[in-house]
Amino acid sequence: MTYTAPIRDMLFTLDAVAGIGDLAQLPAYSEVTPDLTASVLEEAGRFAGEVLAPLNRIGDIQGSRLENGVVRTPDGFADAYRQFCDGGWNGLPFDPDFGGQGLPWLLGTAVQEMWDGANMAFGLCPLLTKAAVDALHSFGTPAQKAKYLAPLIHGRWSGTMNLTEPQAGSDVGALRTRAVRNGEHYRLTGQKIFITYGDHDMSENIVHMVLARTPDAPPGVKGLSLFIVPKILVGADGRLGARNDVRCLSLEHKMGINGSPTAVLAYGDDGGAFAELVGEENRGIEYMFAMMNNARLSIGIEGLGIAERAYQMSRDYARTRLQSRAVDSADPSPVPIIRHPDVRRMLMTMRATIDAMRAIIYNTAAGIDRAKHLPDAKDRAAWLGEVELLTPVAKAWCTDMACSITSLAVQIHGGLGFIEQTGVAQLYRDARIAPIYEGTNGIQANDLVGRKLMRDGGDMARAFFEHIRMTAAEAAGQAGSLPQIGAALNQNLTAIERATQWLIATWPKDKRLALSGATPYLALFGLVSGAFLLTRQALAAQAHRNGADRAFLDGKITLARFFCDNLLTAAPGLAATVTGGGASTLELAEDMF
Amino acid sequence: MTYTAPIRDMLFTLDAVAGIGDLAQLPAYSEVTPDLTASVLEEAGRFAGEVLAPLNRIGDIQGSRLENGVVRTPDGFADAYRQFCDGGWNGLPFDPDFGGQGLPWLLGTAVQEMWDGANMAFGLCPLLTKAAVDALHSFGTPAQKAKYLAPLIHGRWSGTMNLTEPQAGSDVGALRTRAVRNGEHYRLTGQKIFITYGDHDMSENIVHMVLARTPDAPPGVKGLSLFIVPKILVGADGRLGARNDVRCLSLEHKMGINGSPTAVLAYGDDGGAFAELVGEENRGIEYMFAMMNNARLSIGIEGLGIAERAYQMSRDYARTRLQSRAVDSADPSPVPIIRHPDVRRMLMTMRATIDAMRAIIYNTAAGIDRAKHLPDAKDRAAWLGEVELLTPVAKAWCTDMACSITSLAVQIHGGLGFIEQTGVAQLYRDARIAPIYEGTNGIQANDLVGRKLMRDGGDMARAFFEHIRMTAAEAAGQAGSLPQIGAALNQNLTAIERATQWLIATWPKDKRLALSGATPYLALFGLVSGAFLLTRQALAAQAHRNGADRAFLDGKITLARFFCDNLLTAAPGLAATVTGGGASTLELAEDMF
Repeated sequence: MTYTAPIRDMLFTLDAVAGIGDLAQLPAYSEVTPDLTASVLEEAGRFAGEVLAPLNRIGDIQGSRLENGVVRTPDGFADAYRQFCDGGWNGLPFDPDFGGQGLPWLLGTAVQEMWDGANMAFGLCPLLTKAAVDALHSFGTPAQKAKYLAPLIHGRWSGTMNLTEPQAGSDVGALRTRAVRNGEHYRLTGQKIFITYGDHDMSENIVHMVLARTPDAPPGVKGLSLFIVPKILVGADGRLGARNDVRCLSLEHKMGINGSPTAVLAYGDDGGAFAELVGEENRGIEYMFAMMNNARLSIGIEGLGIAERAYQMSRDYARTRLQSRAVDSADPSPVPIIRHPDVRRMLMTMRATIDAMRAIIYNTAAGIDRAKHLPDAKDRAAWLGEVELLTPVAKAWCTDMACSITSLAVQIHGGLGFIEQTGVAQLYRDARIAPIYEGTNGIQANDLVGRKLMRDGGDMARAFFEHIRMTAAEAAGQAGSLPQIGAALNQNLTAIERATQWLIATWPKDKRLALSGATPYLALFGLVSGAFLLTRQALAAQAHRNGADRAFLDGKITLARFFCDNLLTAAPGLAATVTGGGASTLELAEDMF
Repeated sequence: MTYTAPIRDMLFTLDAVAGIGDLAQLPAYSEVTPDLTASVLEEAGRFAGEVLAPLNRIGDIQGSRLENGVVRTPDGFADAYRQFCDGGWNGLPFDPDFGGQGLPWLLGTAVQEMWDGANMAFGLCPLLTKAAVDALHSFGTPAQKAKYLAPLIHGRWSGTMNLTEPQAGSDVGALRTRAVRNGEHYRLTGQKIFITYGDHDMSENIVHMVLARTPDAPPGVKGLSLFIVPKILVGADGRLGARNDVRCLSLEHKMGINGSPTAVLAYGDDGGAFAELVGEENRGIEYMFAMMNNARLSIGIEGLGIAERAYQMSRDYARTRLQSRAVDSADPSPVPIIRHPDVRRMLMTMRATIDAMRAIIYNTAAGIDRAKHLPDAKDRAAWLGEVELLTPVAKAWCTDMACSITSLAVQIHGGLGFIEQTGVAQLYRDARIAPIYEGTNGIQANDLVGRKLMRDGGDMARAFFEHIRMTAAEAAGQAGSLPQIGAALNQNLTAIERATQWLIATWPKDKRLALSGATPYLALFGLVSGAFLLTRQALAAQAHRNGADRAFLDGKITLARFFCDNLLTAAPGLAATVTGGGASTLELAEDMF
C-alpha cells in the first residue's frame, strides 16, 4: 500500500509532450534546468511516499470529525501539512513577490499528481488553496493581495471555494446567500454545503471565497458577486483577531475521501459575516470561472494521481500473487497472475490510459504557462484556446478513467480487492467523487460542446485536429510500428472530425439533440487526444531509442500501439453514437421512465 | 430509497423473451397460468418492497458482527428471513417432494431479482442455499436428500459454498483442506475464507458444501471431493444434536454487502469436522461446477436487481430535482433535471441496459427449465448448450453493467450521490463484489472463449447467431423503426461472427493471443445478445401495439432502438480489439510494467 512517484514516466512526458525544455527558454522560467526539474520531482516524490502515503488509510478510517464545534482532521494530517508548507510545496507555482517559488504551473501539476496519488484527501487542502490564490492574484486589490496572499501561498492559511447551496448545485445561479454592503465591506448571511476543508485544524486561518448575491442584484448568474470571508478576522497588520461570523454546522458522511472534511457552513448567524468584495459587484461568476478552470484541471490531476497508485498496487500484486498454471505451458505450477493474458490486458489498459491522462494533463498545464509567458500575443491566445478546449476533457475524461482504473485495481485483487484492509477499495471509493465536483462530467461535456466548440464555430478544435493530422503524418514516415500507430490516429481523427462537424451543424437547429451527444463526444475527444499525445511520446521514443533507455522507450512505443489497437478502437462507435443516437435518446415519453 | 418491483417490465420480458406461455404448456408447469405468474410477482414484490427494502440501509450501517463467537446479523434480518421462509419463497423453484413449490426456475429468477433489488446482502442467504439445494438434489444419496433437503428448501437451514482458501482463489485446484475417511464418513480439517453467510443467526442450522482433498487424491482439480459439513450435527431422525467441529474465526470488513457476513471458517480444530461425501471421491469439481453454474446466473441476477433499484432512485430524483433552465427554452425557471439531455441519456442508458440484462437472464433461466423438461432430447440438449453458452455472459456482462449503472446513479445524484445517507453510494459499493465472486469476470470471459466456444468448434455459438440473424430478418420486414433496429442487429452480428471466427482460428495456434481478447469478446457478446433480445421485445411490442398498452409498448421499441443506436455502436470496435489488439497486449516486457 505504498506509493512511489513515477518519476521516470513523469520526466518523459514533461519532456516529450509538455516540452518543459522549451518552457525553460522563456525568461520567466530560465532557472528550470533539467537538474532542477529532476530534483524537485525527487524531493516531492520522497515527501509523497514517506509522509503523505502512510496517512492515506488512517485518513479513511478515522475521517475528519466535528467535535464540540471544532473540526479535527485525522492523526498526522496537521503535522504532515506543517511539513508540506515549510518545505515550500504549497507555493511552488506562485508569484515570488508573495513568497511563492515562481516555478511553472506544469511543475506544480507534476508534484500535485504525487500529493493526490499519495493521499487524495490530504491533497484537497492545497488544491483549494491553489484555486483561492489564483483568484486573488488575478482579481484582488493590492490591499487584499497584501493581506491574504503571502499566508495562503505559504499555506499557514488555507483557502476554500463556496458555491453550492441545497437548491444550487450545478445551477450556481440559483444561490441565495446574501451580502449587504456595510461601509467599506459587506455583511454576508447564508448557508453553504459541500465545502471541502470548510473547517479544519491544519491551518491558522481559512480564507473562504464565497459567491453571494447583493440586495439589488439581477437574478441568475449575472447577479453573483465574489467575496473573501476569512474564518478569523485579519487586522491591518496581518495579525489574527476575533472569529468571524461563520460556523461549521456539520460534516458529511461520505463514500470516500474521508480524511478531508466536507462542511456545511453557516454564515451570519450573529448578524452577518465580515466579507470583502473581490473586484466588482455582479462579476463574481466570471472570477469564479477563472478560478474554477484551474480547479477543474486539478480534479483531472486527482484522477491521474489515484489511478497511478491503483496501477502500482495492482502491478505489485499481479507480480507476487501465484494462481493457476500458464495457459500455454505443460508445467502445472501456479504462475504470477501477471502472466495470464486477461490480467495483462487489465494492467496494459491501466498503464496506457494513465500515460494518456498524464499527457493530456501535462500538455494542458504547460499550455497555461505558455498562455501566460510566450512572447507573441497570437501564440499566447492560441495556447489559451487550447487550454480552454482541453480543460473539460482533462477534468471529465481523466476522472472517468480514474473510476475505471481503480475498478480494474479492485478486479485484479479479486476477493481481496473488496476487503477494506487491502486498500484498493478505498481508491475506488475516493475516486468516485472526482466526476462529480467542480462541475459534473455532464457539465464538462456540455461545456465542451455548447461553449468550447460553438463559441468560434469549431475553429479552435480544427486547429487542434490539424496538429493531430501532422503528428499522424510524422508517424507514418517512421520505422517500426510507428506507421501503424499513425494510421490508426489518422483514421480515428476522421471519426472525431465527422462528429464535430455534425455537432456544429446541429447546434443552431436543435440544441437538445446536439447536447444529447455531449458525453459520448467528450469520451471520443479524450480517446483521440490521448492517442495523439501518446503518438507524440512514441515519436520521441523512436528518436532516442538507440541510447541506454531502449527498453523503456520501446515500452512507450508499445503503450501507444496498445492504446490505438485496444482503446482507440472505440472511437468510431462513439462518433456514430454522437451523430446517430440522439433521436432515440430524446424519444421516450417522460412518463414511461 | 424504496424499491418497487418492476412487475410490468418483468411480465413483458417473461412473455416476449422467455416464453413463459410456452413453458406453461409443459406438463411439469401446467399450473403456471398468467394469473398465477402475476400473483406470484405481486406478492413477491410486496414482500421485497415492504419487508426487505427497508432493511437495506440498516444492514449496511450495522453490518454483521462476530460477538463472542456468535455471528449477529443486522436488526430485522432474522425476522425478515423467518417471514421469507414461512411465505414459501425459499422453496419456490424446488422439488415438491421435499416441500418445494415446483415452479419454473424462470419464476424463481424473477422473484430473486426482487430480493436482490430490495436488499442484496439479505438475498445472498437464499442464493447460497439455492446452490446447495441444487447440488444435493442432483448428486446426493437418497439418505442425504432425506436428511438435508426439506429443511434447506424451507429455509430453516441455510447453505454455503466453501471453495476459497488463502492460496486458492480462482485456482480452486490449489486448495489444501483435507478430508480423511473415518468409517462411513470423513473427518475434515482446514481453513476456508470468503464464505458468504458462513455463520449467522438467521437459520437453525447451516449446511456447508465443502471442497476438500482426500489423502491419496491426485493433485489439482482432479483430486477434489465435495462434502456436506453441517454446522450442527443432524441425527438420523433429523433432530439437531451437538455442534460440529467448525468455527467462525472472523468476518471480513468489506466495501459493501455489509449486511451479509463473509466468514473465515476453521474446520477440525478439535480433531476434524464430521463430513459426508457427496457422490464419489475426486469428482467434487464436477459437482461444484454444476452448482456453480446456477450460482453464476444468480450473481447476474444480483446485478440486474441492484441496477433496477439504482435506476428507480435516479429516475425519481431526476423527476423532482429542479436545476437550471431548459436549454431550448427562454423561460429561466429551473426544470426537473430529467429534461436535460445528458441526464436523459444516462437514464436511457440505465433503462435500456437493464431491459437487456433482464432479457438475457430470463432467457437463460427459461433455458434451464426447457433443458430439463422439453419432451425432445435434442431440444433439451440445444437449450442446455445455450444455457451454458450464455451463463458466463449473464454473469459477467450483467455484473459489469450493474457497476456502470450504479455509477450512473451516483452521477445523476451529483454531490448527494457521494453522501452515504442518500443510499445510492451503497448500491455502488454493494454492486462491486458481483464481478468478483463465483468466478471473476475474467474467468467468465476465459470460460466463454476457452471452453464454451472451443469445445464444439463454435457450433453452439453459430446456432445462437443463426437465431439472431432470423430475428434481424424478421425486424427488417416490419413497420416503424423495426427495420432500422433489424439492420443494426444484422450489421453487428457480422462483427461478432468475425471475432468468433478469429478466436476459433487462433486458439489452436496461440492460446495466449486468443485469451487476450476474451474480455472484449465477452463485452461484445453481451451487447449483441442484449440487442438481439431487445429486438425480440420490440417485435412483440410491434405486434400488440394497437391495444391499451400502446405507450408502454412503443416505449419498448424506443428502448430497443436506443440500445442499437447508442450502445451497440461499440460492437465493431470491440471486435477490432479482439482481432487486432492481442499482439500489443502481450508485447511489453514484464519488467517494464
